[in-house]
This record gives sequence, structure tokens and C-alpha cells, in this order.
Amino acid sequence: MTKESGPLWGGRFSKPPAGDLMSFSSSIAFDVRLAPQEVRATRAHAHALRRAGLITADEVGAIESALDEADRLFSEGRFEFDISDEDVHSALERFLIERVGESGAKIHAGRSRNDLVVADLRLWLKSEIGQIRSGIDALMRTLAGRAREHASTITTGYTHLQRAQPVFLGHLLLAHAFALARDFERMGAAYLRADVSPLGAGAMAGTTLPIDPAVTASELGFAGVFDNAADAVADRDFALEFLAGAAICGVHLSRLAEEIVLWTSSEFAFATLDDAYATGSSIMPQKKNPDVAELARARSSRLVAHLVHLLGAMKGLPLAYNRDLQEDKEPVFGAADVLSGMLSVLTGVMGTLRFDPDRMQTAVRESGATATDLAEALVLAGVPFRQAHEIVGRLVAKLESEGRLLASISAEELAAFDDRFTSEMVRLIDPRRSAEARRSHGGTAPERIAEQLRTLDGLLESQAADLEKAVP
Amino acid sequence: MTKESGPLWGGRFSKPPAGDLMSFSSSIAFDVRLAPQEVRATRAHAHALRRAGLITADEVGAIESALDEADRLFSEGRFEFDISDEDVHSALERFLIERVGESGAKIHAGRSRNDLVVADLRLWLKSEIGQIRSGIDALMRTLAGRAREHASTITTGYTHLQRAQPVFLGHLLLAHAFALARDFERMGAAYLRADVSPLGAGAMAGTTLPIDPAVTASELGFAGVFDNAADAVADRDFALEFLAGAAICGVHLSRLAEEIVLWTSSEFAFATLDDAYATGSSIMPQKKNPDVAELARARSSRLVAHLVHLLGAMKGLPLAYNRDLQEDKEPVFGAADVLSGMLSVLTGVMGTLRFDPDRMQTAVRESGATATDLAEALVLAGVPFRQAHEIVGRLVAKLESEGRLLASISAEELAAFDDRFTSEMVRLIDPRRSAEARRSHGGTAPERIAEQLRTLDGLLESQAADLEKAVP
Amino acid sequence: MTKESGPLWGGRFSKPPAGDLMSFSSSIAFDVRLAPQEVRATRAHAHALRRAGLITADEVGAIESALDEADRLFSEGRFEFDISDEDVHSALERFLIERVGESGAKIHAGRSRNDLVVADLRLWLKSEIGQIRSGIDALMRTLAGRAREHASTITTGYTHLQRAQPVFLGHLLLAHAFALARDFERMGAAYLRADVSPLGAGAMAGTTLPIDPAVTASELGFAGVFDNAADAVADRDFALEFLAGAAICGVHLSRLAEEIVLWTSSEFAFATLDDAYATGSSIMPQKKNPDVAELARARSSRLVAHLVHLLGAMKGLPLAYNRDLQEDKEPVFGAADVLSGMLSVLTGVMGTLRFDPDRMQTAVRESGATATDLAEALVLAGVPFRQAHEIVGRLVAKLESEGRLLASISAEELAAFDDRFTSEMVRLIDPRRSAEARRSHGGTAPERIAEQLRTLDGLLESQAADLEKAVP
Amino acid sequence: MTKESGPLWGGRFSKPPAGDLMSFSSSIAFDVRLAPQEVRATRAHAHALRRAGLITADEVGAIESALDEADRLFSEGRFEFDISDEDVHSALERFLIERVGESGAKIHAGRSRNDLVVADLRLWLKSEIGQIRSGIDALMRTLAGRAREHASTITTGYTHLQRAQPVFLGHLLLAHAFALARDFERMGAAYLRADVSPLGAGAMAGTTLPIDPAVTASELGFAGVFDNAADAVADRDFALEFLAGAAICGVHLSRLAEEIVLWTSSEFAFATLDDAYATGSSIMPQKKNPDVAELARARSSRLVAHLVHLLGAMKGLPLAYNRDLQEDKEPVFGAADVLSGMLSVLTGVMGTLRFDPDRMQTAVRESGATATDLAEALVLAGVPFRQAHEIVGRLVAKLESEGRLLASISAEELAAFDDRFTSEMVRLIDPRRSAEARRSHGGTAPERIAEQLRTLDGLLESQAADLEKAVP
Repeated sequence: MTKESGPLWGGRFSKPPAGDLMSFSSSIAFDVRLAPQEVRATRAHAHALRRAGLITADEVGAIESALDEADRLFSEGRFEFDISDEDVHSALERFLIERVGESGAKIHAGRSRNDLVVADLRLWLKSEIGQIRSGIDALMRTLAGRAREHASTITTGYTHLQRAQPVFLGHLLLAHAFALARDFERMGAAYLRADVSPLGAGAMAGTTLPIDPAVTASELGFAGVFDNAADAVADRDFALEFLAGAAICGVHLSRLAEEIVLWTSSEFAFATLDDAYATGSSIMPQKKNPDVAELARARSSRLVAHLVHLLGAMKGLPLAYNRDLQEDKEPVFGAADVLSGMLSVLTGVMGTLRFDPDRMQTAVRESGATATDLAEALVLAGVPFRQAHEIVGRLVAKLESEGRLLASISAEELAAFDDRFTSEMVRLIDPRRSAEARRSHGGTAPERIAEQLRTLDGLLESQAADLEKAVP
Repeated sequence: MTKESGPLWGGRFSKPPAGDLMSFSSSIAFDVRLAPQEVRATRAHAHALRRAGLITADEVGAIESALDEADRLFSEGRFEFDISDEDVHSALERFLIERVGESGAKIHAGRSRNDLVVADLRLWLKSEIGQIRSGIDALMRTLAGRAREHASTITTGYTHLQRAQPVFLGHLLLAHAFALARDFERMGAAYLRADVSPLGAGAMAGTTLPIDPAVTASELGFAGVFDNAADAVADRDFALEFLAGAAICGVHLSRLAEEIVLWTSSEFAFATLDDAYATGSSIMPQKKNPDVAELARARSSRLVAHLVHLLGAMKGLPLAYNRDLQEDKEPVFGAADVLSGMLSVLTGVMGTLRFDPDRMQTAVRESGATATDLAEALVLAGVPFRQAHEIVGRLVAKLESEGRLLASISAEELAAFDDRFTSEMVRLIDPRRSAEARRSHGGTAPERIAEQLRTLDGLLESQAADLEKAVP
Repeated sequence: MTKESGPLWGGRFSKPPAGDLMSFSSSIAFDVRLAPQEVRATRAHAHALRRAGLITADEVGAIESALDEADRLFSEGRFEFDISDEDVHSALERFLIERVGESGAKIHAGRSRNDLVVADLRLWLKSEIGQIRSGIDALMRTLAGRAREHASTITTGYTHLQRAQPVFLGHLLLAHAFALARDFERMGAAYLRADVSPLGAGAMAGTTLPIDPAVTASELGFAGVFDNAADAVADRDFALEFLAGAAICGVHLSRLAEEIVLWTSSEFAFATLDDAYATGSSIMPQKKNPDVAELARARSSRLVAHLVHLLGAMKGLPLAYNRDLQEDKEPVFGAADVLSGMLSVLTGVMGTLRFDPDRMQTAVRESGATATDLAEALVLAGVPFRQAHEIVGRLVAKLESEGRLLASISAEELAAFDDRFTSEMVRLIDPRRSAEARRSHGGTAPERIAEQLRTLDGLLESQAADLEKAVP
Repeated sequence: MTKESGPLWGGRFSKPPAGDLMSFSSSIAFDVRLAPQEVRATRAHAHALRRAGLITADEVGAIESALDEADRLFSEGRFEFDISDEDVHSALERFLIERVGESGAKIHAGRSRNDLVVADLRLWLKSEIGQIRSGIDALMRTLAGRAREHASTITTGYTHLQRAQPVFLGHLLLAHAFALARDFERMGAAYLRADVSPLGAGAMAGTTLPIDPAVTASELGFAGVFDNAADAVADRDFALEFLAGAAICGVHLSRLAEEIVLWTSSEFAFATLDDAYATGSSIMPQKKNPDVAELARARSSRLVAHLVHLLGAMKGLPLAYNRDLQEDKEPVFGAADVLSGMLSVLTGVMGTLRFDPDRMQTAVRESGATATDLAEALVLAGVPFRQAHEIVGRLVAKLESEGRLLASISAEELAAFDDRFTSEMVRLIDPRRSAEARRSHGGTAPERIAEQLRTLDGLLESQAADLEKAVP
């Protein structure tokens, strides 16, 4: 039996670790989250040791019973840690030794914490990416639903936060959905990257014991096995790729969040938050705040920070394992939690948001957003675009100096302003007609929105199939 | 004719832009790099306008001649800019108007700088990613070559920068190559993301003119067309995905660079830089410095910074185009340049580095790196691993207290230290034997290195096919 | 004479540097910006060599003439570089040797590029921080002027982008000014940090030649001299501190920029950009865009990236100089340029922005922003605040359900809603009265704004004195 | 009494918050850490309400008793939270209402969570910065002690990780100490920035109630009061400044950590970790790893990430409070914890590290690190430095080609190599003599190290006075 009150590796050391060293270097506070994966990986390793003839069937049985107990204790939050437990790996090994004695002391043969920890993290991340992809899918479905509902709700498209061109609201909601479709894809790529077993790499050179990594990989449901043992324990690009995908998805969500903040402001007033997704003020009784959107916006910055953290921690590390790599877990855990939360609440917000079509219609009517239509009409009449742009620009400036909107112009005035205008061009000023006329591919015209919805439905169908498949 | 000395959009404005505004907002200093792409995209758009009946064949001819001239002038660095040129788009449009008058003034019909700029950037990036993938491929081939050469050169594998286990040098070089193989893949995914044409999205809603985006996309060699016009002009996740891939690849390169710095230090002295890839000191005559590796290491931080820059710039932007998106170009240009440079010089360094097998052999002999082998031998003899670990740990501590190396132990001493040792286990102390015995999959044993080389050759073959295909 | 066509340090090398190494490692493309500082530092070093008796007065004279010529050539952009010039230091030394032969070859005695480059950068940064502090000061003065002008312009204060409480516009403008006052202070601290001469540290250990660092420091106008030579060449915290100050200032400016974007949107319409500080659209003739504010907002992300770049590059570097430190210049140059530009244009924008007091007044009248006043009145009447908050909350909800604003309530209705209200409390609903009543320190009441303006004037006065003093 | 099972602000809402909204937006899990500060701030506010005549002395008494109880419950971890507690503020207000009824319901008059939360955070940070400054001071003292001990231990100074010049170990240890002295200063500036009370700013406009912010500030020990209420609730630059200072300090510590990793490698073997500050391997029995240094190195990246997080979250926020600001706490808490931990363990490591003077002496003897001395001797003999550099460079190259060290050259050989050498120059090859000769200010000569130690002692004395003063 190893000493009960010291670390796993005490043999060569003449004194115990300093107290502040243990509190500084112990990862148990956060890697306990990997306990279910640690139990699974250890079970698979026990089977591998059995195949290699290094433990008996009876020993496997005893170990499995102890693992079952540990799993239960972990899940119930009742697992008792020892002061010497540096991490979930040493905690579980100590537990096995306490429960099944020598058999437990055999479990670490042919493996190292170097390969074990990254196996646990890959298993955890695979499952988490599955959740996140479901969350992306759910938000996309909600956006698709709202886009279908508002396929003919006229509103303003903005550039530079200035009213730009009339569009149907569905067009804008679909823009967010298509961005998310790419996030779903990226998360799928990150999943494949994570889906490679590092077990069997040992410290960094493989093992002299007759253990087959492919068997463990297969039992744990990994799609493949590492190619090179040093790479397997040293690299974390699967984590970086996940964090990058999360940061990009976070940027997308922050943009949707910003629109929610704008739409629900009194100035825009394009939408009202459902009371269940709004919050109040501790001091101002009238307030109804979009806190949830603000937090989603802010937390996209945290996702960037998690990525910066791990990229920075890994930069310049020589082969193979360095303890710096312990810093992979908190960013990965944090990013998964934050992103899942953002997806969930934004799905709730978007599913319950009440749009105000009248306000949006008023806004677009009060804008000069159909000026491009006038210019394009001049183009169809043979005026070079640059000249057409200038003519309409002068018209807008003249009206503005008179305190008038483009919408107020009469057919006669229009024709009189420049002889390249015809009086019938005045009908182009109508926002709805403008939006209906943008019939080019990907445009806002109703038939194009319908087309976009069909494309999106196709994506959602294939996503559903993908998610189905991924269920462990 | 538009006014020659003002911006494209002067019609509605009563006074010219302030001087500091122009110098602050003009992007011409860096986006001129997109001139070849701007010319190509404009040529394709001229064809689209012709198909739509908006310009005549003669006009197309005149525009094409002017574009040829502009292309030449740009490539020779002789294109003359006007103070009013805000960006490469307005510069080229002004040039066309100057050269071919009204025909030139027609060119901007049915397009916006919003879709144009992102088309240019996508074209540029596709080509650049091709170069970068070639650079990754070249470095991988160099590493594969050196790994083959050093497949049986014994050295120390490190963890925590402490001598850990004997390995063959090829094993370590292959670890770097396999990491780069994933970078190659990621860059491929970024290429596909970039390979979507945004032309035809206009400002954000499509156009009322009868122009078909699919035709322009096809002429420009894009694999696909945008789904939604607002998304097409608002999103830059193709750039973010490239920057993330570059940052991760940069981390990999920084790790190789760190090894070069260590190997070429007097303390390690495992390798010597070729004089062509070393630099000297302005003050210390004896110095031979690995500046190139240090710079590669440092520049991986710049790659992270470029990613942070664009993620931060895009966070919280509402739809659709916002001028903030102008900040996409410098990070993308910078990252492509830095990464290409890093790949090139590291290929040069690794191709010419002289390894010193004797030094490496001495280092591993003087280490206790075969302690794991002793422990694993005890395991094969039935000792639980945790006990085996402790026995060997005590042995190492004892020898250390006597100022001795593990390598110095005799068969008798070994057997006498603990009766679970046998005297013949002493042969396990030989580093080469140790490395040869790590025959598990992905391990460092010669047959495993050979297997890894075969796997890598397969990857390189498919990479070559991939690169062939991507040639425009 | 050293070889003309090789690097400074060629003596121990058997072949010239590879082409890609030179293009990868040369910094001349950007550090040429330090040429004026390099000339100054070299002149001071020549004087120090003279004092130490290592060169003659005649040699100093010849060197000074050559330095004068180099200075002129640099400033006119006519300095001719050699392919072998790695950096501005080697370029100038080569030039001196070409011009004055052996005397020039003596100049590098007792110094190293390690101490020289950081001396140049410190000199450059000191001057640049002076400019930036002037820029901050100018924007603060502009804000103070506009705040004074709008000290009694009623508008809405926002929290969560929801109308919160009535305030005077001056109160909000002053909030931005006070934040900038702290930036001015931080830049002052960064200046002091930079104001330490590293010359004389040599490579990292000082020199055996009888040169006194204090003399050179004094001639160059540094306030102090380094304490430890290894620290002097290895550390860049003066650059990091500047970059951090720039990033924080950038965040402040991005917030002002965001307000400009919001205020000039059609939905807020609280302000109109002067035509000189607005831009148009290449396609939409009616557009008047706040590009300058958008760019300022986005570029604050670049400032963060510059900081991340250098922090990451320096992390984990052992003592003393490492070539990684070459990566200090581009972030510092970039940050100084970007920040100066942001300050300049935002000063232009804020100085010319036309506020629309009517729109602001309407907005606050149409809000429920005086609800807190009602609650506070109940508190003064003895109702516990939490109950007062709930009563007013219910009142707002009731009115909202009737589609009514708080402003529409009559004295009778108020009194009838809850008996803790009195009918005269209805006057509290007036926004101007509300703002006038917030007389607590730092509040928005006119006398408090006047007090804030006095505080700010005091700060500006001391800033002016500070800027005066810093003039070299 | 307010509703017990809903949030503070339920009055205007028709339904309770959604479950995922509460879990997403609640900050209680981390801001409970501010409970002691919340209690203190609430106590001071109660006193302010009493002075303003808004509560009675009896009510104050009741509130104080309840606060005492809450404080105790928080510190014992026995405070019971309600599902509706969004944050520590609402939790404590609910508790007060439950305990003392109407009196408790009065507590939130004249304050907002907007000013309250930032008051708590400032109080917390002031105390934490005090701890961190003590930690910096302790590490500096340890370094000073070790530098004094090793003031005449000869070793190699490195640049580019190549042996550069002989120095005394104390010189290098002092370099780290001087860098930390600047961190101490920066933390002092951050402390002053934090030392400003925001209480009384209310939501963003001050209050109509007769409460004096100066009184609360004084009771809480703040040195000053906010100038402008909108700025007070909107800005977090005190937090950013702390995070920037922490990131810079982290970079310094990461560099010391890297040296520890290098020194304790077998290749350098300049130092041995005390067993109390080393860790072992779960698989390799012989390993003694510098995990603590590796973690310190990696965690400097976390400090950068915390800074990026908050800078990014604040970028582009309009006035005044936005919920995004809730994201200030976790980075600030995280940075303080990480930095304190790093300082503590590195102090332990550096205090117990055993240096090996023999190894260091051997290393410097086997190097060509005195080549600069030869070149400087030639300069003193009238040879221009650039020529001297080349002569010595050729000498080194010749010896290297013969497999010889500079140290092996004889007086005769030296004189024969180039007639500008004299035979007595051979004594310059001695490393100790070289280090002793670097007598310039800040150099490594013993008298200069003694001088540096005196300077450092002066700094430590003034730091001690500073720390004394800061004790609350």
C-alpha cells in the first residue's frame, strides 16, 4: 500500500509538498467535473489491463464495483476528498486503492495522467459540443419560425445604424440564422477533432506493456486513435478549435443581442420583451431592462478571453507535456457553460419577443430608405449610376433643408426636380414595393425569403440527422 | 460626370469632409493590396451588367481596356491616387470614369461597396490560404525527412522540461508534423468558408436590377453564392475562422521555435543552426543567435492579437454593414504575412539544422529516464504499479543522495535494493532498449516510427492532391 | 573597415544569411521611424565616448556632421538603405563608417543594440505620449465647452439603453470628460515610466569602458537612469503600461463613439453630424453615416490587440534580451497612431455636433423616467422605499396596459391610485423639475453641474501646466 | 412587505422571470464574495439615512443587529439564499426585510444597485491590492536576500538563451526585483484609483433625498468621492487599471518562472528545487518537476485573458450603467486570486531554491562569454570597435572550427592571431575578472551590485512604510 496521506509520486521525495504549493497547483476544485469521464476511462483501462493479462477477471470485477460506487458518490456530491488529492485522477486512484487494495494499485500501469487527463477532457467536450449544437439548432429553429411569421412585415434595414433600405423583418432574422448555421458546422468540425483517443500515449512515448490503444478508444466511443504519443499528450488544438468556434459563435450571438437591446429601446420600440425575459430596476420602478441581452453581449467577450487564455498558455511550450496544459480546463469549461447559457436564453427571448409591425412600418415610411430605388430606376432609364446617385442625393438634400421626408414628395415635384425623373417614378418611394422589388438571389423580396427559408429548412433537416447520430 | 475632387457620395452634402476625417477613415493605404481582386470583381460585374442589358458590348470593351490599364498601373505601383479616394473601390471607379466617361459611371449599378469589399477580401484570402497550405505542407515534408533521417537517433523525451523517457528523435519531429497536419486541414476548412461569393448582395437587401449573382460568382471562381444579402455584407466569420486557424498554427510553430531555441543553447547543444539561419550580436563577437526562432515564437502572439482585434471589432455590431468591418483587412493581411514568413523560415531552419546525436545520447544516458521501464518490469512481474512506482522512486532518491545516476547501478545492487527486482532487470536501464520496447501504437519504437511515417506519407500525398486541385 | 555587404556581426560566420531570414527578421521597414531618436542617441553616445577619451574631438566633429547629414536624409526620405541593414541601428552605423571611416567604426564601443533600441523607443514614446496627452486635453476641453453650453438642456439618462432618469445633457458630457481626465493621468504615469535612460546597460551587464550612463541620460533629457543593466535591456513594462493606458482610453472613446452612433440615428435623432464629419454611401444616396464614430469604436479593439500582442510576446521570456522583444515596436507605434487619430476626429465630431434639444425634451417627456421621483417622494412621506418602489411599479404597469405614459396622469388619478400618493405629487412628473431636484453631490442639478465644471476647469488648468512643462 | 418569492423589482411585471433567465443572469454565485463589503456599505448607508432623517435611531439599531447577523452567517457560510436572490444586494435587502420588516424595506432609499455594486467592488479591491502589494514586497525581499547571498557567485548572463557575458548571479536576481518594484508602484496607482467612493450616485443622476455622499465615503474609509454620478456608475477603469497591472506583473512572474524551469532542467542544472516546492510524476518514478513554475508561467496568460475579458465587455457601451458591467467581477476576483497565488508560491520557491555555484562557474568557463572583453580591450588600445568585433569574431570562429573554447587560448596564440592583441590580454578571458570589470553604473561588478542592493533596500523601506499606512 502506498502512503495514504501523500501524493501519488512521493517515493523519491524527502519532504511533503508545501501548503501553498498544493493549493496553487491542485486542480481538484475544477477537474472534479471530469469525474464521470475519469470513471469511464478507468473502466476501459481496466478492461485493457485484463486483455493484457496484467490483472485478473476478479480484479476487474472488484475495480468495477468500486468505480460504480465512486461514480455514484461523485454524482451525489458525496465523494470524500483527501488533502493529498491533487486532481480527479489521483483522487480516484486513491479511492480504488482504499476500496480494493492491491488491485486498485495496479490500475495506473500503462497509463499516465498525461494521456488520461486529455482523454477525460475529450470525452467531456464531445458531449458538451453535442449540447451546444442542439442549442444552436434550437435558436436557428426559433429564428426560422419568427422569420416565417414576419416574412412580410416591412421594416428598415440598417447600415451604420442609419436607415438604409426597406426590408422584410424575416430577411433580417434569417441573416442571424444563416450565421448560426456556420457555427453549427464549425462545432461539428471541433467535435471531429476532439473525437480521437489519446489513451495509450502514456507519458509521451507509449508503453512497454502489451496494451492496445485501439481497444480502449473503441470502448470509449472514440472515432479514432492518436498517431504519435508525444503529440497526443502535448497538443490541445482540439480545445483551441472549440474555443475559437465558441468565440465566433459568441460574436454572432452578441450581434443578435445588440439588436434586441436596440429594438426594445424606447427610441426604436420595434419589439417588447416578454416579462419572463425582462428584468427590473432596484431603484427605478418603471424600468424593464433587456439584461439578458446585455449579458449575452458581454459574455461574448468572456469567450474571447477563454481563447486568449489557452492560446497564450500554450505558446512557446516545448514538447511534450508541460504543467501549463492544466490551464486548458477552466477555459473549456467556462466557454461551454457560457455559450450554452447564451444560446438558451436567446432562444427564450427570441421565441417570446413581441414585434411591433406598426412601429417598424412607421419608421421605414419616415426614412429616405427608398432613395436607392429611385437611383436604380434612373439607371434602368439609361442614366449612369454615379449620376443617378448624385441626382437623388441632391433631391434628398433639398428636401432635408426644407425639413421634409422623401416620402412627402409628389409626382409633379419629382418630375420637376430633374427631367430624368418621370412622374410615375414616385411610386418607387413606397417601402413595401421597394422590398418586393429586390428580387435578386438572396434579396429581401418575398419569393427570395421563401427560398431562403427552404434552404434553411434543408440545413435544419440535415442538422437534425447529425444530432441524432451524435447521441452517444 | 461626378465631381472630380470629392468623394463618390457628395450629392447630399453641403461641405467637403474634414482633413482629419479623411486621413482617419481612408483605407487606401492598406486596401490597395486588394487592387488585383477589385479589378477582377469589376470585370465580372461589367459582364453581369452586360447580360442584364444595362451596358452595351462596346461599353464593356472600353471598361475592360481601362481595367487592363488599371491592373498594369497597380502592379507597377504607378496608379495615381486622388486625395478624394477613400478606398480602392472609389479609386478604381474614379479611374474608370476618367478613362471611359459615362460608361465608367455606370459600373456601380447593382452593387455596393458593402458586397464588393468582402468579395475582394474573399478572393484575396482564397489565394493566400493556398500559399499558406503550401507552406505548411513544405514544413511537414521537411520534418518528415528529418524524422526519417533520425528515426534511430536516441534522445531524451521531456515533460516539464525534465528528462522523462528515452525516445528516438524522429518520434519528436513527427509530433510536430502531425500537429501541422491538423493546421493544414483547418486551413482547408477556412478556404471553403471563404469560397462563397457575396457579390449581388448590394447594400444588404439585394438589388432591383436584373443581375444574377450566380453568374458573377462562377466567373470569379467561387464555389457558391451567399444565401442572404444582409448576412453576406454583415458577417466576417470566414476571416475570423482564418485568423483562428492562423493563431492555432502559430502556437504550433512557436513550440517548434522554442525547441530550436533550447536545442541550440550551449546547455542542450543538441543542434547547431546553419550559419545561413543564424544571426550575430552587434556587441558580443562570439554570439550565434537563434533570432529567427525567437521571432517566430514572438510572432505567434501577433497572430493571437490579430484574432482578438477582429473578434473585438465585430462584437455587438447590429445588422447589417457597419464601418467597423473595415477593421477586417489589416488583421487578415497581417496574419497571412506573418504566418507565411514563419512557415518559410522554419522550413529553412529545420531543413538545415545539424543535430548532434552524440550529445543527445550522452544526455539520455546521464538521466534517470528509464525509471519507468523498471517500474513496468515490476508490473509484468506482478507488482501493482503504484508500489512499483514507489520502489523505483526510492531507488532513484537513494542514488541521488549518493550523487549517482540510475545508469550507474549494477545488477547486484539492483537485486539487493528490493527483492522484487531481479538482477537481469538491469538491462532495462539502457535507453535505446527502452525506446525500442515502447512498441504500443503511436509509441517511439522503430516499427512504430516507421508506421507513423507511412501515415504521414499518406497525409502528404492527399495534401499534394488537394494543393494541386486548388490552383486557380 | 567592416565588410560593406554583410551584417555588422559577420566575423564568426562562414556564410551570409538566407534571403528569407533577412526579410523575416529585418525590422528596418518599421524601426526607421526611430531614425531621429537613433541620431540623437548616437550623438549623445559620441559625446560620452569623447569624455571617456575613446575618440578625439575631431572624430566627434566628423561624426556629428555625418549625423546631421543622416538626419536630413532620413527626414527627407532620401536615406539610402543597404540590403544588409537589419535595422535602423545597423543602417546608421554603416552610414557613419561609409562617411567617416574609422571614426564611424568606433561608435558602437560601450553600447549594444540591446540598450540602444530601447533608448530610441523610450525617446519616441515620451514625445508621442506628449501628443496624446494634448489630444486628450483637447477633447476634454471640447466636452467641457459643450457641457457648459448644454448645462440646462434636458434629456434622458439611460441605463440598459432604457430611459432611466431625466438629466441635463451637460451631466452626460461631463461623465465622458471625467473619464478622460483619468486617462490623462494614466498617460502621465506612463510618461514617467518611459522617462528612464537604458543607455549604458550594454548587452546586459554594463561595460568595461569608462562611460557614465548619467551623462548620456542627461543630454537626452531623461529624468533618470536604469538601476540594473539586465533589467534595462530585458524589460518593456514602460511599453506595456503605455499600451494598457491606450487600451483603457480607447474603451472610453469607444463609448463616446457609441453614443454618437446612437444619437445620430433616426430613432434617437438627438444630434446631427456636421457634414464635414459625416460620410455617404456609394449606393444609397440618402445616407449620412457616422463612419468616423464607428471606426473609433472598432479601433478600440485594435488597441486591445496591440496590448495582447506585446503581453503575449513577453510572457515566459528568460533574462535578458531576447529577439522576441523586437515585437515591441509595431504595437507601440500602432497604438500611438490609432489613439491620436481617434482623439483628433472625436474632438472634431464633438466640437461640431448639432444637438437637438427639442427631440431630447420630447423623448424624456414621453418616458416614465420620473418614476423614481414619485418613489422618493413617498419615502419622504414615510413609506419604506421597497414599498414605494412597488406602488409606483404597479402604477406604471397599469398605465402601460392602458397604452398611457406616466406623463399623462392627472393629480386626481394619482391620488386615487394609492392613498399614500398626494395630488400635489403630480408635479414630480415634470422631467426638468426632476433633474433640478437631484442636488446631491455629483448629481445632475444645475448647481451640481456648475460645481462639476469648476472641478473640471481646475483639472484642465493643471493639465495645461503639465503639458507646458513636458515640452522638450 | 414585498413579495417574498419574486425579485425586488416585480411591481411592473405580469409574470415571474423564466428559469433560464434567472440562472443566466444571477450573479449570486460569485458576488457573494462581496458580502462583507455589502454589509459595510449598507451599514454606512443606514447611518446616512439616519442623518437625513429618513430612518430613526431605533431603526438603525435594528438594521445594525440584522447586519451583524448577516455578516456572521455569510462568514460561516450559513446565510440562506432564496431562489429569487439575483445578487448579494437583493439577498441582503431581502434578509433585512425578513428580519426587521418595514425598517429593512427602507434601506434602499437613495441608493441603487448601480452605485452599490461598484462601491462593494472598490472596497474589496482596495483590500486585495493591499495583499498583493505585500506579496510583491515579500518576493522582492526574498530576491534581495538571495541576491545578497549570491553577489559574488559567478554565472552566465544570457541573451537569446545563448551565453552572453559573465555576470554575478546577484545581478540577475536583482533584475527581477527591480521589475517587481515597478509592479508595486503600479499596484499603488491602481489602489488610489479604486479609492474613490461611488455611493450616492444612485442610478446615474444622484438622488433627490438629502444624503451626503462625503459622509458615507468617509465612514467607509474612501479617500475621495466621485465627481459625476453618471461616470461613477458607468466606468470601471479602476478595475481595468488593476487588471492591466496584474497582467504586467504576471508577465514579470512568468519570466522568473521560465528561469526556474530552465535552471532546474538537467541541461542547465544551475539550481535544485526544494522537495517542498517540487512535484512528481504519476508514472515516471525519477521525475522531480517544477510544476509550480510552469503553472505560474501559464497563469500569466490567464491574467491577460481577464484583462481582455473586461476591456472587451466595456467596449462600445453607451452611458450609463449597462448590465454588461456585471462581467467586471469574475475577472477581478480571478486576477487577484491568481496573482496572489503566483506571488506566494514563487516566494516559496525562490526562498528555498538551492543554487549550484560550481555548475554555473563551469558553464561560464566553457563559454566564449568574455569575447566582448577582448573586443573592448582592443578598443582601449585604439582599435575601432567594429574592427575589434570582427577580429574577435574571427578568432572565435577559428577556435570553434578546431573544436576549442575561447578559454583554451594561450597568451602566445592570442598575440599571434592578430598583432593588435597583446599576450597579456589573455587574462581578460577569465569570467570573474570580466564581471568585476563591468563597473559602469548598473553593471554587474560587485560594487555595482552593492549599490543596486542599497537602492533596492531604500525602495523596500519606503514600500514597508506604504504598506503600514494602507492597513485599514
